[in-house]
Amino acid sequence: MKSGSEPDFSLQFQVEGLHARYAHALDSDRLEAWPDFFTESGRYRIATAENEARGLPLPVLSAEGRAMMRDRVASLRHANIYEPQRYRHIVSSILIEGIDRHTVRSVASFLVVRVMQDGQTLLFASGRYLDRIALAPEPLYAERVVVCDSRRFDTLLAIPL
Amino acid sequence: MKSGSEPDFSLQFQVEGLHARYAHALDSDRLEAWPDFFTESGRYRIATAENEARGLPLPVLSAEGRAMMRDRVASLRHANIYEPQRYRHIVSSILIEGIDRHTVRSVASFLVVRVMQDGQTLLFASGRYLDRIALAPEPLYAERVVVCDSRRFDTLLAIPL
Amino acid sequence: MKSGSEPDFSLQFQVEGLHARYAHALDSDRLEAWPDFFTESGRYRIATAENEARGLPLPVLSAEGRAMMRDRVASLRHANIYEPQRYRHIVSSILIEGIDRHTVRSVASFLVVRVMQDGQTLLFASGRYLDRIALAPEPLYAERVVVCDSRRFDTLLAIPL
Repeated sequence: MKSGSEPDFSLQFQVEGLHARYAHALDSDRLEAWPDFFTESGRYRIATAENEARGLPLPVLSAEGRAMMRDRVASLRHANIYEPQRYRHIVSSILIEGIDRHTVRSVASFLVVRVMQDGQTLLFASGRYLDRIALAPEPLYAERVVVCDSRRFDTLLAIPL
Repeated sequence: MKSGSEPDFSLQFQVEGLHARYAHALDSDRLEAWPDFFTESGRYRIATAENEARGLPLPVLSAEGRAMMRDRVASLRHANIYEPQRYRHIVSSILIEGIDRHTVRSVASFLVVRVMQDGQTLLFASGRYLDRIALAPEPLYAERVVVCDSRRFDTLLAIPL
Repeated sequence: MKSGSEPDFSLQFQVEGLHARYAHALDSDRLEAWPDFFTESGRYRIATAENEARGLPLPVLSAEGRAMMRDRVASLRHANIYEPQRYRHIVSSILIEGIDRHTVRSVASFLVVRVMQDGQTLLFASGRYLDRIALAPEPLYAERVVVCDSRRFDTLLAIPL
């Protein structure tokens, strides 16, 4: 992982910052900002741990490029499914697993709770983020794979995680 | 956010440390230490996301200054409501949003679970901390606003979050 | 905590990295790697907050040294209890509380959710990690005490936390 003898605080700091801004954007219902966390041709998909382990390339949801992501956000707004709930992302155990010239690979754990309109709070999803992050000119996801621990996906389809 | 070209690890480190000490104090039932995480005239309030979004200045709970906070702790101890439960704060996505001469503005996500006396663990609250932190002579909250995702507040009144 | 005037980012970074690798190993069902996060004579135990507060030295589970840990993992695999569930550790509020020549003492909060085979996600455990970490040649737990908030331990016996 390390190229030299010093751990790279700066890199860890940048990755943690990107993850934090992403989570706050979704939790504040700033969905329109979501595509901007990716590179122009960035890829996003939600998968289950079970399917990933079996090598099944059947994502629950996937998008390639900001344009497709913007479409997705627009249709979510139109369908008006997103409105009545709130989400809260908790992200931890952010690890940098590899670095090549322009990209960092990292893994992190997440837990998302959903707060219903009547005030009830439910565990919604847990899992891992597997990320490839482009560093320049600013940190952006070149790929974000959301591997959910659960195989259940009733409503997961609705929103980005 | 950045005044120069280097990200400020030191600032992030200080803010994360303050949040961590605060969380451990509450979760260890060291309520009497709670006011000491604030400046002498520090402000604390719990609000709901709904009320904040509407600009309603109706906090669920508020305290101005350490003296008022100490009163609150004393009455909690007297009422003896706090005793039978345990809380666990999980804090993540800590972001520094602005810096002026002496103060840092930051946001963080939290999740609090409550462990009942019979051993049952429940999701209790989730939301955002919106903080103004005085840095010198040591990091302390000049203002901590706890914006809860849920509008329900049966028992939230009892303890600081 | 500080030996000089500068906060020690490097130490915090190392402790956070160890905790993150540990959590990802357990959550990815890499149980066989678990003993390797400890020093050769490292100690591990799970206790309840209630027993710790009363000074009762009755751990729910304990292991001394990697050899005993490997035995434990082997019997877990044999019993085949572990398989059908997934766990997700969320770790936050990692604080370094003391440093002596070769060891760091730290505390952290954790929350573990369990994902059942039918897809249901449950709060499983919350509590504190109390760690003594040997730094050289690489960060390893000399002692990890898992203090659970709840007194309930139906299934906690099965897996390391």
